[in-house]
Order: sequence, then structure tokens, then C-alpha cells
Amino acid sequence: MGVNPNRVAGRETTSILIQTDSSLPPLEIHTVCLPPNKTAFHGLKRRLCEIFFPDDPLYGFKNQTFLKKFILGLQYLLPIFQWGPNYRLSLLKSDIISGLTIASLAIPQGISYAKLANLPPILGLYSSFVPPLIYAILGSSRHLAVGPVSIASLVMGSMLEEKVSHSGNPVLYLQLAFTATFFAGLFQASLGLLRLGFIIDFLSKATLIGFMAGAAIIVSLQQLKGLLGVVHFTTKMQIVPVLSSVFHNTREFSWQTIVMGLCLLVFLMATRHISIRNPRLFWVSAAAPLTSVILSTLVVFFFRESVGNHISTIGPLIKGLNPPSASMLYFHGPFLSLAIKTGLVTGILSLTEGIAVGRTFASLRNYQVDGNKEMMAIGVMNMTGSCSSCFVTTGSFSRSAVNYNGGAQSAVSNIVMAATVLVTLLFLMPLFKYTPNVVLAAIIITAVIGLVDYPTALKLWKVDKLDFLACMCAFFGVLFISVQIGLALAIGISILKILLHVTRPNTVVMGNIPCTQIYQNLSHYEEAKRVPSFLILGIESPIYFANSTYLQERILRWVREEEERIQVNDESSMKWLILDMTAVTAIDTSGIETINELRKTLDRRSIQLVLVNPTAEVVEKLHQSDVLESFGADRLYLTVGEAVAALSLTKGRP
Amino acid sequence: MGVNPNRVAGRETTSILIQTDSSLPPLEIHTVCLPPNKTAFHGLKRRLCEIFFPDDPLYGFKNQTFLKKFILGLQYLLPIFQWGPNYRLSLLKSDIISGLTIASLAIPQGISYAKLANLPPILGLYSSFVPPLIYAILGSSRHLAVGPVSIASLVMGSMLEEKVSHSGNPVLYLQLAFTATFFAGLFQASLGLLRLGFIIDFLSKATLIGFMAGAAIIVSLQQLKGLLGVVHFTTKMQIVPVLSSVFHNTREFSWQTIVMGLCLLVFLMATRHISIRNPRLFWVSAAAPLTSVILSTLVVFFFRESVGNHISTIGPLIKGLNPPSASMLYFHGPFLSLAIKTGLVTGILSLTEGIAVGRTFASLRNYQVDGNKEMMAIGVMNMTGSCSSCFVTTGSFSRSAVNYNGGAQSAVSNIVMAATVLVTLLFLMPLFKYTPNVVLAAIIITAVIGLVDYPTALKLWKVDKLDFLACMCAFFGVLFISVQIGLALAIGISILKILLHVTRPNTVVMGNIPCTQIYQNLSHYEEAKRVPSFLILGIESPIYFANSTYLQERILRWVREEEERIQVNDESSMKWLILDMTAVTAIDTSGIETINELRKTLDRRSIQLVLVNPTAEVVEKLHQSDVLESFGADRLYLTVGEAVAALSLTKGRP
Repeated sequence: MGVNPNRVAGRETTSILIQTDSSLPPLEIHTVCLPPNKTAFHGLKRRLCEIFFPDDPLYGFKNQTFLKKFILGLQYLLPIFQWGPNYRLSLLKSDIISGLTIASLAIPQGISYAKLANLPPILGLYSSFVPPLIYAILGSSRHLAVGPVSIASLVMGSMLEEKVSHSGNPVLYLQLAFTATFFAGLFQASLGLLRLGFIIDFLSKATLIGFMAGAAIIVSLQQLKGLLGVVHFTTKMQIVPVLSSVFHNTREFSWQTIVMGLCLLVFLMATRHISIRNPRLFWVSAAAPLTSVILSTLVVFFFRESVGNHISTIGPLIKGLNPPSASMLYFHGPFLSLAIKTGLVTGILSLTEGIAVGRTFASLRNYQVDGNKEMMAIGVMNMTGSCSSCFVTTGSFSRSAVNYNGGAQSAVSNIVMAATVLVTLLFLMPLFKYTPNVVLAAIIITAVIGLVDYPTALKLWKVDKLDFLACMCAFFGVLFISVQIGLALAIGISILKILLHVTRPNTVVMGNIPCTQIYQNLSHYEEAKRVPSFLILGIESPIYFANSTYLQERILRWVREEEERIQVNDESSMKWLILDMTAVTAIDTSGIETINELRKTLDRRSIQLVLVNPTAEVVEKLHQSDVLESFGADRLYLTVGEAVAALSLTKGRP
Repeated sequence: MGVNPNRVAGRETTSILIQTDSSLPPLEIHTVCLPPNKTAFHGLKRRLCEIFFPDDPLYGFKNQTFLKKFILGLQYLLPIFQWGPNYRLSLLKSDIISGLTIASLAIPQGISYAKLANLPPILGLYSSFVPPLIYAILGSSRHLAVGPVSIASLVMGSMLEEKVSHSGNPVLYLQLAFTATFFAGLFQASLGLLRLGFIIDFLSKATLIGFMAGAAIIVSLQQLKGLLGVVHFTTKMQIVPVLSSVFHNTREFSWQTIVMGLCLLVFLMATRHISIRNPRLFWVSAAAPLTSVILSTLVVFFFRESVGNHISTIGPLIKGLNPPSASMLYFHGPFLSLAIKTGLVTGILSLTEGIAVGRTFASLRNYQVDGNKEMMAIGVMNMTGSCSSCFVTTGSFSRSAVNYNGGAQSAVSNIVMAATVLVTLLFLMPLFKYTPNVVLAAIIITAVIGLVDYPTALKLWKVDKLDFLACMCAFFGVLFISVQIGLALAIGISILKILLHVTRPNTVVMGNIPCTQIYQNLSHYEEAKRVPSFLILGIESPIYFANSTYLQERILRWVREEEERIQVNDESSMKWLILDMTAVTAIDTSGIETINELRKTLDRRSIQLVLVNPTAEVVEKLHQSDVLESFGADRLYLTVGEAVAALSLTKGRP
């Protein structure tokens, strides 16, 4: 049998012909070779590039003149220079229409979300003015509509309120809100700058669905205060104290508020339903919030003598643009850690929403959104916002959808929206004096109800029970414990799921599909047949410290079970254990030791361990740790078929 | 082309013959089928069994009578009933020899490690008496020598001392030490009982090496107090305060102590060296500690008038057996959380050492040690210990090695050791009155110096740079920050490494090895050739929420790069993207969506996405989420070769 002695260490694959019998064609066996040599530095560089620059961001910069590189760099940092020069007036019409539509949605929602964060309502308008302008310059999504969002506002409100009362100490509360916004922005921008954007990928979609649904219910329950006109309401967030607070304050219910609230809810829900049924009528639900604000304000205004006293209103708002707030940032003192923590949590939540929304609409229109660049844009937007009386903002899902359906063509729609808010801030503020709080509650409920995505949860149950479990943990965690714990649970379960999969990888017994060279999982393909004298195992995972002990024990258990099976069926005894390493995409030092230990243990039992198709990284590491050499030429093959063929020939020989 | 329309949904693989040209043999194409149907309950059960019972512990119980099952159960819980009845007197001689040898090592080491934990020296002897007896009944390792160990003692001492001074409040300190021991045992036993033993696998060997080396240096530095005879020594652990404490107390140096210490160190190191060079002389280093204790005690005793006052000694020890200490356990009060935390950390550390030692010697003698059972044994041993004046104990690596080399055949050697300690406790205690502390310091240094395993660290550097980095982080974390932070760093880095690998999996471009049906990584096998009109990508990881975004973007980047390459080389345009899913061993809902998105995106670019060899789990989930059907018969193949052959035939057709 002519086996090339350098087969293992060589850098080139060669094929060897084994002549068994003159009547048969010779058997061709391919060798496993080492991957091309590369230095440690080169390997590390490639690895780090793949971690931090998988999208190859400098790809367009190659082979360009200096001037061109400068322009490309400017366009990279400020995308407005990219789309701006190509902007045609013909697009303006769609942008104005969609900008006005989202403004009509953003103004009432902004006021509502500011109240959700226990902040003065006007901050919602401020936050719908400066951030969209910044995003129009820095952002690369064409459809993102920027402003305050429900989840981040809720979390900010609940985290700050736990330590500082917004009614007891309004100035400190405001300071902390701006500071948290600043840190949220700093965190977001740093993630983008350090190209650590993949961190948000650790929030799995399944857990996010549970978290969002829980948060939506929490938010809706909070609105019972406004909907029922209750004055003394709990400051807690969980479902139990909120409901008990409602049932203990039935005397404070105001029927005028309840009637108005129900009418508004029915109106808003009906318009929402119409838009869902017929997406071309998106403007029906988009215009509904402003319409209901106007209608309810008019009602309160005209009946201010009779019912007006029973319905609480927003009250007078100050005319004028965002006042600067940089001096209110709070960088020392006992609550700094609270501000930083709130900033981190709201930062990551708003980032998750913003990036997801941006990606969704980009993929619908077939353009790319660079996650890390978007993070920098959102981060800078929030840092600027924190200095101009804004709280945390990001791309809102509901408003972006309206923007998209409204035909937005570029970030100009955000500028149009900001201009509309500007006009409102300068001239229309007195109109909000009689706007009832109940309409804000109705708007919030209608906006967040869409976050309860039970069809997807049902699908999770159908497709992946563990994903569903994670989803439910996040949901009940938010509902019964707290928003932060719910979020922590969501992340924890997501990571645990990965670790569990890594710790307990699949091993499958493979067999030959008759008359082919195909070897497949016996429990998947029923016609695959075991090959006598062989046990062929597919290892379906990298071999790591976290699973090396398990794999070693599991493989030995397969061997034991195979030996018992052979004894029962009185078959020929097992001589070779073939490990199909195709799916072993990486190995660490513990894994190498496991392979080595396994070889020795099996040798003591007169079973030969054979490796098939180790990947480049595995071959390299086995070689570096001198384990590969102990396998020798007749223990390494490129395919299972060749291994079986070659080893079968040696059967019975000395 | 006769393609079976039920090819995807069918439960059976069939092969289809495609007749292309009458002059060629027909092309045989195998179908991808669904795995055999199983209920959600069955699937979950299999999954949970694999997580919690991978070793099939009830395997021996099948098809047995009730009595036999009862006996097997008893033997399972108390392994002494398994080996006890078969114990032959011929084994007793080896067990007595090895038992006496480890006792001669355990007595001085026990006293030393008690001092390391800031506990009264006699606790070291107590802890070498009760726990070995318990382990002899419950443990399944034949070679584990049980008693106090250096790392766990150090960590217990450093964690408790941070909050409670052992000299200022000795009773509370003792209470906390027993309570921490109790919780360590409770934690260990629970891990075993709940079959969560795999948790200790998350401490990778690489990080453990760094952690142990750092801890060994910390321990050795602490011994400078005893070696130099310094009285006022820092209570801190880190390298900087310890060294500064040494250099600021040079006046307290006692030359008598230093001379004696150096002599003892040289003697112990020399004997250690002899035993390493010639493993048959293991008894030389095993007997050395007791010899040096006896010699140094004699020196101090005879010269007690002249030098005795300059050398600090252990002082009088009380004769008698372990007093009960259950009443000293501390279950309420301000330090309870400290005791629990210390218990958790020392518990996991001692467990890691005990299990690793047990497995090492079991694999040398080719028997199995059941991790979960061992955890219960060690846990019960520590819980019992905490009620009989013992602190944390586990299997010690150095003493188990001596036990193994001494020819121990069973847990009887632990009983012999306990009996020797019993004799010591009852009759020999006065002999320790003049034993100098310096000999304990020398014994500890000699024992822990072996934990600095620089050859393995060098090998890590050679084989796996990331493992080496993790090792160094743990090492410097322990050395410069604190033992707990070092441990946390070690665990954190280990988990981060797994997550990083999951987030950024490999994707490789594959090509055909000419004249074969083998498709391999182009950058690994140089003779593999691209197939015109095809881009064949191997995805080397499960597709998860954590990497689905990355994979989608990376695959599209491969497509872009391939299109550029085609343009430059003026080749025929790309028509098919084949994803080899062999290594995609699992998929979650985000991953399914990615596949679906990718198909749609590529469809828009007139490139067909083809999946090859999806594993059973992937086929099942794609089917459940109705994505599989959208691929249809001509987009799913069993091997890359068949996919290329079949698709090439359709080339150019309408």
C-alpha cells in the first residue's frame, strides 16, 4: 500500500492510488494537507479584521487618489454629502408629504412619551426638533423617523423614579434625565466607534418580542391613570401594584374622562385597523392622533365650563425653541451611577430599536445600512440632544413605517418634520393648553399595542420551544418583576441558550447510503446503513473546553453502545472509530487534549481512531501541538468514503 | 427532468435519475428528506436527557429485578458497597503504605493550609480526619487523597479577611469559615444533585493555568512573613502591598528564621527535584515535609534557650478529636451574604480541583469517575465537615499524585490516612509545640510552586493565542487586582471567547478538487478549483440570533466580491449561490429569517440560493416555519457535487 509518508505534514494535497486487485480499478485516496503557512501576526490580523471590520468599510477607498479618499471619508462620516448632491427636487414632494405626516404623528406621540418618562410634556417636542436635524446629517437610513420612543422612555422613567421622585425633586430629576441621555449617546457612539456593534446582536429577537410585549402591557397599564382620571396613582410599574392602585381608587374615577377616553380609543383603534387591513390607507392611522388631539382639545375648550374641570389637561406650554441644557448635566454626586446605569440601559434599548428599524426598511428597498455608522449617528444625536433639552431618541418603528408608506425618499423628510415641530414650538403652543391628558393615554395605548406580537410568539412555540421559553421569561420578568430585570433575564437567557448549545453539542452516528459515497446521519436518513467493523460519528460542534469532557464521555458511550449492539446481533467486532470532523470548525487546547486522550483510550481497547476532513484551523492546531503526527498517514482521510474504502482493504491484514 | 414534487416534504429519501444524454449514464440525484416525525414532547425529552443525563446513569438498572435495582441504587449512592465486598486483603498492604505516605504529607500541609486561611493550625488536622472518612464511603475515585488544599484555603482566607479580621474577632471569623464551608458543600452537593456539573466545565483549562499560577505566587509571597520572621505584615494579598510591606519591615527580619527557612527550602526543593527526575523515588519528596517538620522542631527544641526566642513556633495544640461545630454555623446577620459568597467561590474552586484530579487518575487507570456523583460526595463531605470543625476540603492534586505513586488501590488509603491523623490528634499533639512557623512556610512554597505551569503556558502561546491571552489575563488579574477578580476575569474571558466564536463564525469559499466529487475550502486546498457560474460557501457554525446579521452581511459581501472577481476576469456570470449547510448544526428563528431574507435578496439579483445537506434539525425547523417549501425541489440537494451536476444541466435552459 503506497502511502506517502509526508502525507500529514506536507503542504500539498496529493492523491494516492492503491492497487488492490488487478481486476478492479485502483482506489484513489486524497490526503489531508496543512493549510498554507501564515504567520501568527497574519492570522491574528485576519481574525481581528473579521471581528471588527467584517463589512470591509474601507473597501471603496482602495486605489483612489488622495482627494477622492478625502471626499469618500467625508461622505462616510456625513452621509448627507453622499445623497445631498444627487438630491433632485422631484423627490421633494414625497419627502414633504411624508415629513408632514410623521410630524402630525410625532407631536402628540412626543408629548405622550415625555409624560411616560415623567418629564415635562414640552420635552417631547424639543426631542422631535433637534435630533431629527442631526440625524438628517449623520444618518444613513432614508426611512428612519427619529424622535422619542415608548420603551426607552418607559425604562428611563422607571429607572430614575425608583431613586428620585419627579414630583418631589423635579430639577434633579431633569438633570438626571439629561445626563442619562448624554451617557446613552456616549455609549452608543463608543460602540459604533469601537466597532462593537455586534453587542446588540446578543439580544435575540425571541427575547425582544417577550420583552416588548411585557413593556407594552406595563405602559398600557400606566395609562389607566390618564384613562380613568385617577389622581393618586402608584409610582410602581409592575402589574400587581398598578391594578391594586386602580381598584383602591375607584372613588377618583371621572366618568367624563372615561367616556372621552373610550371614544378616543375606539376611534384610534378603528383607524389603526383600517390601515392594517389596507396599507395604502396608512395616512388614516397616521393622521388619527393629531385629529383626536384637535377634537378632544376643542371639546374641552368649548365645554370648559361644564366638564372641563373634571378632565385634567396638559396646561400652558412655553413658546420658544429648545433651551440649552449642557449646564444641567450632572457629572458628580451620589446619583451619577444611577444616571450612567440608566444611560446604558436606555442606550442599548434605543439602539436595538433604531438599528432594527433601519435594517428592516433598508432591506425592503435593497440598500445597506452600516450598523456601526448608524450607532455613531444615533449616539452623536443623543449627546447633542442632551445639551439641548432633549431626552433619549432613536428611530421609532411606528413613525418610520408611516414615513416609508408616506413615500419618504431621503432624510429630508426628517428635516420637514423638524421644521413642522419648529413652527409648532414657535407659534402653536397655546393651542395645547386645553388638550386633555386622556388623549395622550389613548395615543400611547394605541401605539404600544402593536408591540404585543402574539402571532410571532405562537410561531416561536411551533418552531423552537427554547426560543419560546426565553420569550416568556422576558415577558413575565417585565410584567411581574421589573423592566430592568426583565431585560437582564432576556439577555441572560439568550446567552445561556448559546452556552447550552456549545456545552452539549450533537453527535450523530452515520451510515452509508447504499451504492453511493454518501455518509449520512442514521436517525435522519432511514436507508443509510451501518458499515460493519466501523463506527462513524459526526461531531456537530467546535471542540472546546466547555464541551471537551462531555464529548469525550459521549463518544465513549457511543462506543460502548455500539459494542453492546454488536454483541447482541453477533456482528463482526468494531475496529475503527471514524470521527467526521467536517462540522468541527474550531478546536482549543482542551479539545486537542481530548482528541489525544481519546486516541490513547481507544488504542488500549484495540480500536483505531480515524479523523476525517478536519478543517484548516483544526489541522493547523493539531499540527502545532504535535498531535497530528501521532495519527499518522492511515488515520487521516479527506472523506468518510475514502477512509472506509482504504481501511477496509487493510482488514484482516497483520 | 423528472423531479419528485414531494421531494422536500417527504419522509423518505429517494434518488432520482436524470437522463441528460443517451451517451452518458444517467445522473443520480439524492433528495433531502425530513427526519422521522417525533412529537414536541419526545424532542424536548431527548434534549433535556442530553443536557442532564448525557452519561445515561440508569443504564445498568434496565431489565433488573427489584432487589437487584435496590442493591445497584445503594451501590450508586454509596460506592463503598460496590468495591467493599470485592476488597481483598492482598490490596491492603499497598493501601496502608500509600495511606501512611499521604498522612506524612497531609499533617504538615494541613497545618500550613489552615494558617493560609487564617484559621487555627489544628483545624488543618481536623480537616484531614473527618472528610477522608466520609469520602471513603461516598467517593468513586480510588486515588483521590482528600484534605485542605492551597487555592481554596487562600481564597477563603482572603475573602473573609477583607470584611472580618481573624485576629480582631476570632470567634466570628471561625463561625464564618464553618458557615462558608457549609455553603460550599451545599452548593457542591446541589450541583451534583441537579446534574449541573457541566457548570465547572466553563472554567477553561487555559484560564485555570493562569489563575493557579497567579494564586501560587500570591501564596508564596504571603509566606515571606514566615520565611523572614516579619511580625507586622500586611493583610492584603496583592503583589504590590506585600512587597512594600516586606521592604518597610526589614528591621523585623530574624536571621535565625531566614537561615533555617533557606535550609528547609533547599532541602524540600531538592527532594522535589529528585522525585520529578525519577518518579519511582516519589517517596523522597513525600516524606520530606514530615522530615523537615521533625528536624526543625528538634532544632528549635534543643536550641530553645539560644535561638528559640527568635523563631516563632506553632505553640501548644489541644489534644483530642474534632469538636462538634454545628452550633457555630451562622445563618442570619450582617455577614451571611459574605459567608454564602465565600462558600460559592471556594466551593466551585475546590470542586474544579477535586473533579479534575479524580478524572486525571481515573483515565490513567482506565476507570470512569462520574462527575455529578463526585460533586455530591465532595459536597456532603464539606457539609459534614462544617459540623465537625473542618474547613473546605477536596481532592488535593499533590497528595493524590503521591497516593497514586504509592500504589493506592482503593479509598482504604484515605481511611489509613485518617487513622494516622487520629493517632496524631490523640497522642502526638504536644510534639508540635516547638514546630517553627518557618517550616510551614517552606512546605507551602514547595507545594504551590508546582502550580506555576509555564511549559503549558508556552504551549498555549504556540497553539492558540487567544487561549494564551485568557491565561495571562487571569494570571495578572490575580496578581495585581485580587483573587476573586482574577477568577471572575478567568470565567468572563472563557465565556467571551465562546460568544466571540459564535458571533463571528467562519465562512469559506469552496471549490472542486478536479476529477472528484469532493468540494473543499479554496484557501486550504490549493488544487481545489472554482466552478464557473457557482459560488459555493461553507457556513461553519449554527445560525443564531447572535450571528444571523453578520452572516447575512458576510454572505452578501462574498457575493459582491465574487461578482467583482468575475468582472475582472471576464468569466461567465454567477447564477447560483450554494450554501453547504453541513456544519450548520442548529438554527433558531432569527437564523431561519436570515435564510429567507437571503433567498429573497438574491432572487432580486437573479441569483438562486441553493441549500446543500441541511442537518436533521435544520430541515425540521425550516419545514415547520414554512421556509423549506419556498426553496422547492431544485434548491435543496444532499451533496454539493449533485447540486452542481444537476444545476449545470439546467444552465442555459429557459
